[in-house]
Amino acid sequence: MDELSAYQGGMMKALVRLSFLIAVMATTFLLSGSSVRAGSDPLPSWNEGPAKHAIVEFIRATTDPSSTKFVPPEERIAVFDQDGTLWASHPIYPQLMYCLDRLPAVVKARPALAKIEPFKTALSRNMEAISKLPTKDLIKIMAAPLSGMSVERFRADAEQWLETAKHPRWGRRYTELTYLPMLELMKHLRANGYKTYIVTGGGQDFVRVYAEQTYGVPPEQVVGTLESVSYRYDKRGRPVLIESAETLLSDVDAGKPEAIHLMIGRRPRAAFGNSTGDRQMLEYTTSGDGARFGMLVLHDDPKREYAPQSLYDEAKRQGWFVTSMKSDWNRIWAFEQ
Amino acid sequence: MDELSAYQGGMMKALVRLSFLIAVMATTFLLSGSSVRAGSDPLPSWNEGPAKHAIVEFIRATTDPSSTKFVPPEERIAVFDQDGTLWASHPIYPQLMYCLDRLPAVVKARPALAKIEPFKTALSRNMEAISKLPTKDLIKIMAAPLSGMSVERFRADAEQWLETAKHPRWGRRYTELTYLPMLELMKHLRANGYKTYIVTGGGQDFVRVYAEQTYGVPPEQVVGTLESVSYRYDKRGRPVLIESAETLLSDVDAGKPEAIHLMIGRRPRAAFGNSTGDRQMLEYTTSGDGARFGMLVLHDDPKREYAPQSLYDEAKRQGWFVTSMKSDWNRIWAFEQ
Repeated sequence: MDELSAYQGGMMKALVRLSFLIAVMATTFLLSGSSVRAGSDPLPSWNEGPAKHAIVEFIRATTDPSSTKFVPPEERIAVFDQDGTLWASHPIYPQLMYCLDRLPAVVKARPALAKIEPFKTALSRNMEAISKLPTKDLIKIMAAPLSGMSVERFRADAEQWLETAKHPRWGRRYTELTYLPMLELMKHLRANGYKTYIVTGGGQDFVRVYAEQTYGVPPEQVVGTLESVSYRYDKRGRPVLIESAETLLSDVDAGKPEAIHLMIGRRPRAAFGNSTGDRQMLEYTTSGDGARFGMLVLHDDPKREYAPQSLYDEAKRQGWFVTSMKSDWNRIWAFEQ
Repeated sequence: MDELSAYQGGMMKALVRLSFLIAVMATTFLLSGSSVRAGSDPLPSWNEGPAKHAIVEFIRATTDPSSTKFVPPEERIAVFDQDGTLWASHPIYPQLMYCLDRLPAVVKARPALAKIEPFKTALSRNMEAISKLPTKDLIKIMAAPLSGMSVERFRADAEQWLETAKHPRWGRRYTELTYLPMLELMKHLRANGYKTYIVTGGGQDFVRVYAEQTYGVPPEQVVGTLESVSYRYDKRGRPVLIESAETLLSDVDAGKPEAIHLMIGRRPRAAFGNSTGDRQMLEYTTSGDGARFGMLVLHDDPKREYAPQSLYDEAKRQGWFVTSMKSDWNRIWAFEQ
């Protein structure tokens, strides 16, 4: 265990423990004939190679009415995991950092919490101790800042944090630490009639705060861990929705295809992930009829990003198709020179 | 209580008991100046009058960049209740009829059910007895046909029923018993950049079966009572989603704005309903900032449709804006001459 690993909490651990175990699945292996035309490259941050060619060719074939792989516009659904797939998730998931940062204010309003676990440990900011908390405790920590807030107040609070909080390594706002190649890919999919959805283990309302501006994904296309809200009236008798601490559906592992069915009601045509928490989403997406595309991002670039574990050799042994951050992406960040 | 009322089950009763109590709310009262141009009437089945003018003017003003009521395209969300708002719900909700029709097959597979309530009563097809069942029993009856089926098998079964089942009064398929004026309205909203959503107490997966073909509403824009699904593997090891009998969220009353937040994540700009089950959805929609529109359909046309209760006088007394099926709609059904 290196020191980065110490930052991982139990739930986070479960999510990323075997990250990169699966690498890239491209069930349709549309590798023959790249359609990248000079001067109109929709994916300039991607190096030429099998990963880029497979993606570009999948999009070309599924939108060409004369192709046997043609997909009607209404069925063009592409789903993206967020943490580690669209933005940096090391050394700690940004949403967990938000919750740890907000916890003192929560405890100020409800002082009794300071004396009970898991809040006592969380307040210590002892990342090693936090990393040893069981999943159910981490869920409590993640839900605490929301609980009892109106959706508008929660949104304003999360917005303020996102404006000011900085990543410990790059000193930049978390919303700047999105992967440029993936943003290009989402844009290219949308330009070809695909609806892009985020399907994340993160809290749905948290991700909705910045998803439209950051990824071009509107709130109705953010599928996250579903926290219930309660319809109430404020002092002036106006309707208000209050965040509760109750989780309706945990959007990880098997919860991902379940949430996709609930929220979208169609099996996606393309899925992008990076960890075992995305395995079922990829299975479900790629096992349907017709043209399908599945891909996992391999974190193998410790110089420009992180490489907590490298399972490249195993991925190769299993015959998975690998998209490497190191060799397939010529730029990772928009702020890179 | 007239004989039609006897068909109403407990849950259904709760939904419609005070139907038409609220009539039409048009919070923005955009009544000044009709923009209906001769020769391009988007709502030909609507008679000229305040209801039609308010709707047309709301759409015109919210899509005119020079208007103070302008609504940016991404915020153009319109929500529609289904039963009694988009299609006929008398003498019995079509989905409840589907469940009663399917119950013998369910019981054949699980004979023990025939001996226990509420299935014993449901199998009797004694509508008066069924109408007296409590809500929780009706939910059991409604969930029974789905439970344990894959989502694909349920879809095929419901499709087959919709193809063959006929309404007892008109002898037509239920999907033909949609209100033409409302279909025109949905189309007109979409032509002006509005996303149209169905927000129904009905089961989400049931409504998704026909919503795209019948209303032009894709599965991802159907918000219904949320039944959970379970991710499993079939005998050949392929992923499959299995319908369960568990309800995650009941999409009636306060559940409507709660489900809207979960599924859409934005407060709608326009809401259309017909019963007290829609009250909170209308409140929530119309109490936001900026241009808003709320409307209830008054069932006051026993000759062409049904008029189980007329609360027109009360609606008028309360100052609600009334859209009458009888006087505001020159056609109700597409099959009318």
